Amino acid sequence: MTTHPVLIDGQWRPSTGKKFFHAVNPKTMEALPDQYPISPWSEIEEVLQAASRAADIVRHWPGSRFAEFLETYATMIEERAESLVAIAHLETGLAVQPRLKDVELPRTTNQLRQAAKAARDGSWAEPTIDTATNIRSILAPIGPVAVFGPNNFPYAYNGVVGGDFASAVAAGNPVIGKGHSLHPETTRLFAEIALKAAVATKMPNGFVQLIYRTSHDDGEKFVSHPLLGAVGYTGSRSAGTVLKTAADRVGKPIYLELSSINPVYLLPGALAERGAALAEQFSTSCLMGMGQFCTNPGLILMLAGPNTEEFIRLTVERFRAAPVGTLLGESVQKNLHDGIKTLVAHGATLLTGGSTGGGAGYSCQNTLLRVTGKQFIKSPEALQTEAFGNSSLVVVCESAEELLAATHGLEGNLTGSLYTAESGADDALYALIEPVVRQKVGRLLNDKMPTGVAVVASMNHGGPFPATGHPGFTAVGFPSSVRRFGMLQCYDNVRMARLPAALQDKNPTGSTWRRIDGNLTQSDVPAKT
Amino acid sequence: MTTHPVLIDGQWRPSTGKKFFHAVNPKTMEALPDQYPISPWSEIEEVLQAASRAADIVRHWPGSRFAEFLETYATMIEERAESLVAIAHLETGLAVQPRLKDVELPRTTNQLRQAAKAARDGSWAEPTIDTATNIRSILAPIGPVAVFGPNNFPYAYNGVVGGDFASAVAAGNPVIGKGHSLHPETTRLFAEIALKAAVATKMPNGFVQLIYRTSHDDGEKFVSHPLLGAVGYTGSRSAGTVLKTAADRVGKPIYLELSSINPVYLLPGALAERGAALAEQFSTSCLMGMGQFCTNPGLILMLAGPNTEEFIRLTVERFRAAPVGTLLGESVQKNLHDGIKTLVAHGATLLTGGSTGGGAGYSCQNTLLRVTGKQFIKSPEALQTEAFGNSSLVVVCESAEELLAATHGLEGNLTGSLYTAESGADDALYALIEPVVRQKVGRLLNDKMPTGVAVVASMNHGGPFPATGHPGFTAVGFPSSVRRFGMLQCYDNVRMARLPAALQDKNPTGSTWRRIDGNLTQSDVPAKT
Repeated sequence: MTTHPVLIDGQWRPSTGKKFFHAVNPKTMEALPDQYPISPWSEIEEVLQAASRAADIVRHWPGSRFAEFLETYATMIEERAESLVAIAHLETGLAVQPRLKDVELPRTTNQLRQAAKAARDGSWAEPTIDTATNIRSILAPIGPVAVFGPNNFPYAYNGVVGGDFASAVAAGNPVIGKGHSLHPETTRLFAEIALKAAVATKMPNGFVQLIYRTSHDDGEKFVSHPLLGAVGYTGSRSAGTVLKTAADRVGKPIYLELSSINPVYLLPGALAERGAALAEQFSTSCLMGMGQFCTNPGLILMLAGPNTEEFIRLTVERFRAAPVGTLLGESVQKNLHDGIKTLVAHGATLLTGGSTGGGAGYSCQNTLLRVTGKQFIKSPEALQTEAFGNSSLVVVCESAEELLAATHGLEGNLTGSLYTAESGADDALYALIEPVVRQKVGRLLNDKMPTGVAVVASMNHGGPFPATGHPGFTAVGFPSSVRRFGMLQCYDNVRMARLPAALQDKNPTGSTWRRIDGNLTQSDVPAKT
Repeated sequence: MTTHPVLIDGQWRPSTGKKFFHAVNPKTMEALPDQYPISPWSEIEEVLQAASRAADIVRHWPGSRFAEFLETYATMIEERAESLVAIAHLETGLAVQPRLKDVELPRTTNQLRQAAKAARDGSWAEPTIDTATNIRSILAPIGPVAVFGPNNFPYAYNGVVGGDFASAVAAGNPVIGKGHSLHPETTRLFAEIALKAAVATKMPNGFVQLIYRTSHDDGEKFVSHPLLGAVGYTGSRSAGTVLKTAADRVGKPIYLELSSINPVYLLPGALAERGAALAEQFSTSCLMGMGQFCTNPGLILMLAGPNTEEFIRLTVERFRAAPVGTLLGESVQKNLHDGIKTLVAHGATLLTGGSTGGGAGYSCQNTLLRVTGKQFIKSPEALQTEAFGNSSLVVVCESAEELLAATHGLEGNLTGSLYTAESGADDALYALIEPVVRQKVGRLLNDKMPTGVAVVASMNHGGPFPATGHPGFTAVGFPSSVRRFGMLQCYDNVRMARLPAALQDKNPTGSTWRRIDGNLTQSDVPAKT
């Protein structure tokens, strides 16, 4: 049995922790042989100090240095793709193809390269210069960033390679990755590659570090530590809110992605025009990857009527016919089953599924539940319990007024989808519902399921609480996701040679956008006349 | 005796509250005749509902509508300048000239006009369009904003006219102003003018509202209410952190400006070159307006030596010679005196002053304290107690190492100033100290006192906690301060006619900067070929 070390200050070192955990193969429900340490506080403090030293060293490096690291890392990952796919499949049960190999890994290296581009360009930092007062400001590296990766994306959101990691590095910050306990070996392998890339591109020791787990108390101390600049967290609402409280108490920026059930409205005209196609789209979106996506459509809202009944009938058929895969782990199975029980306890009826099992290892039947609009309005909070996985709740409302009232009861979500008739028959209802949905979601979709998060500048993978902790930020999309990890630093009357390069008169790249005397420009500061 | 109404939903209405308070003339320490209500919860809820209705109405209005309101308001304020100055002088004791009439009121109308410009331009909202995926996003109005104004700026930070107000409106949000109890009549008069401007520019009822005071419990309910979009708060650290906790718990964005002692480093070469001039600069900055500025220099750090002693001697002389004015109120006098006592209790020595009185009404002697670097390092928290007013603490360190250690003990501040020799004699010490100071302050100054906050795009009136609640934002400077009140809203595959104007293919103003397919441009989306 191998006991894995932690990555501290540029070295793989045996942990000083005395407690360990194993990963589990979710398909066999058997523990994998290797064990990983739970880091004690003294070790976390060492990590923080090493990260702080690294931050001091790189603070004024040009963006190109971080870009080189990110690009080298991406290339090295591609060279190790086979191992990464094999390990992640073993630990998570996610399909090798297309999911891990063809979708998530390319997305992850693409993110690293987009982050590199943002770092090299430097415009994300919004350099701003006022010549009359000689005041200049920029979003500078915020300090070491702790990134807590979730269970459901072993690559794209992983603490040592995912979107928060890439964004934090692009902003010029060292990262302390907190691996997820369901895929420690995948995370370890990324950290191994990251360290090689860091050495190859001459990043300082402590620029990328990895710990696997902490006690709950130490987690709270960690996210509120003075040496930490910010936190990125993707995971459960319960653990996330505990960390949020600890960080908020000391004004430490913490960016969270917590929970989202992603309401989908199928308005009557759309159902009349293309109900069968919608049943197919919805079933595919809801069951893909066993429904283990942050943007999984967990709530369908419709008006009562024969087309709605037909949609439901077709969907139940599809849910029954679709194969049941493997969930990420025992905790996911338990939370999903508990979630379904909570929905039933508050008046939802099972249309199909509802029991654990049905697939290899940890699994749960494809589950569809139904509830009346009246019932939803009565217990909005309980009926928005996230049943994370291959499950969804249909809300059937008797009238537009009831649909509107149910909508008013929605919590914050990452996404909200509205399907309407091509003919315009749903436009009045859209006009009634959309303004309410709009304020409750980060991304509003038309005629499209919410799964599938394009990594483009305009993406918002964010939304009001409890989807995230602040509705002004996105976790996906460059350069916008980078600014979360910048601290606004103003220089007032500071001598030219002491200014960061991006604030000196000469444009350091020749192409960085800066706001000079109120105007966006890529030029140098004009010479005084 | 007049009992003043509150401004709710476009109407001045008698409050339903049963409790009232009076303003006090700080120069006479006598209560002014009028009384103002403490609003009960039912009234606050009405205010929230009216603001929410107003938000629904204006959500998609072009920025020019908000600009017209802001500009009309600024003009109407100038027409009432005389009354505003007279009332604010009576309530706050601040000098009519230059302070209120020549400095703060022009700054305030200037802020409104700069906010108007940002609103009209629309670039602050960072419209972003990706044509290949047809995903588009923008910072949209976050919802009604509650603005809590502080005691020390009756105009420029006032809840119904100051910087947070202007920023929230420029972002397209209704504002609920919470007046400060030390200047209710000033605030009432602004609200009266704001209502006239709102009517003249056809803003909806409930776009600007005013309440004066709430119970502590209701304050917490208010800032965490589902109908509220965000909060801007400038005031004491104790009340601010209570509101922060309440808002954070439900993920409500709250932007705070809490406390700051604004360390000033006078390095040995600078003292040798121009010690007497520095004593004059520092005394002027520290005593101006009785030191009641967020950026007042409350902590001076120096190395021991004859020039340091001479600086202290000259400063004591100036502090003794300078007239003592009037503090804003009894609470300010009490907090200042308590702060001085705390500093003394933790090892600081009084060089001059220290007692209440010495001026008309509420006042305190100009106070200078001194402490050793060793003592400061031993009790950094207590010795950073904010003694808000005409008081400052000198820290004399024995060595560069001690100065560095003291610097490591600093909390987050709005500003940090470093004075160095023109000759370059202090450059090594600057290089040692600056990186540590830089991460702890929002604005770093060279050879300049921190008082005086220019309203320019590059200004950062912000900084790490406890100066503010998040180091990525500024409360002063357009357009940057506006983005605090935007919520990131993404539109995925949404039909063109349903998009906000700024995200449609045509650039709505012809000059708004948008990021289209990765490039910043003022052009329309190119027609498909």
